[in-house]
Amino acid sequence: MFSGAQISLYPMTGDFVGVIMSSFGALDPYRESLRIETDDISTLLVGPPEVLFPALRDLFTTASRTGVHCVLSAAISRGCPGEPDDAICQSKHFAGSMPPLAERQAFAIAAVKEAPETDVFSVAQFSLYVMGEHRHMDEIYGCVEFLKASGTFEKSKHFATKLSGNTGTLFATLEQAFCRFGPPEGHVTIDLTVSANSPSPR
Amino acid sequence: MFSGAQISLYPMTGDFVGVIMSSFGALDPYRESLRIETDDISTLLVGPPEVLFPALRDLFTTASRTGVHCVLSAAISRGCPGEPDDAICQSKHFAGSMPPLAERQAFAIAAVKEAPETDVFSVAQFSLYVMGEHRHMDEIYGCVEFLKASGTFEKSKHFATKLSGNTGTLFATLEQAFCRFGPPEGHVTIDLTVSANSPSPR
Repeated sequence: MFSGAQISLYPMTGDFVGVIMSSFGALDPYRESLRIETDDISTLLVGPPEVLFPALRDLFTTASRTGVHCVLSAAISRGCPGEPDDAICQSKHFAGSMPPLAERQAFAIAAVKEAPETDVFSVAQFSLYVMGEHRHMDEIYGCVEFLKASGTFEKSKHFATKLSGNTGTLFATLEQAFCRFGPPEGHVTIDLTVSANSPSPR
Repeated sequence: MFSGAQISLYPMTGDFVGVIMSSFGALDPYRESLRIETDDISTLLVGPPEVLFPALRDLFTTASRTGVHCVLSAAISRGCPGEPDDAICQSKHFAGSMPPLAERQAFAIAAVKEAPETDVFSVAQFSLYVMGEHRHMDEIYGCVEFLKASGTFEKSKHFATKLSGNTGTLFATLEQAFCRFGPPEGHVTIDLTVSANSPSPR
């Protein structure tokens, strides 16, 4: 298994470099469990979802606390057949076979309820893609059902689902969406946008 | 067929609203051929790829000419089984059956060569996802081969391919990647990031 994300943080301020540099300190507690590489367009994080999503939560929450309008954009992936196995990606999420959809939905809802909350409100928009399956929409519809029951659902949009809530609950919801839908060994990706402090009316 | 994108423009300046508002004027020539709806996290563009990609090119090129570090992020989709057919999406790209891969690659390379160039340099990173196919990686590898011959290829990264070039050639390359790989009636998506004026070294 290989899993991780290409992520970018966009603070809408002339001091975007300062906000990015100071916020990336939030990744320090995760540096032993993630491989991190940055270039001029994104930062690669390689590691299991149970490390990746809390790391993204802390990075984005820290940036948003500046009060600046910030966006986190991420291409998150697991099980791509073109990527090598990597021991750092070993995850508790993908052991064993795939339980029935209803069981996975109930597990996901319970996990979101248990997630620690934060005091930072944000909106998220994402698309879940399940590759290599003829019936890929069943898993996607199953995920949307879970999202509607998660407490973070805001609306369905063309190509995406919009969520909102505190960043603790929100990133826990995203982790469950990514891990519980699509086969454990499958090629599953998320195209994610999270936004805070936008001046636009919701 | 239903096709389009959820897009967002991120100018890294305190005057991000001003840059966004003035750049969106670049979409005016396309407003009869695209359905456009904006909320607080993204703008929906519904229409065929031959309109969508030039529209994105002009929007991003206009924003980048301000000199501000700008990023365009887009979730681009065609053929999602969950979306309704829409007459505005009718495209010249998806008529008839699917020619062999080599023929499609040659067509794509020729189309990129014919594309008008611009004077704005940018880098792009994207992932192509082909759903509903057991052999989805064949199409993805075929697309990467095309990209390597397109003149815009910079490098393969985990989860994504990085391109660079003038925005004319770049968005023509992206349009070909989106239209020529995966079945004409298939569910194909792109997770796209385009960046200009970054202070980070390449």
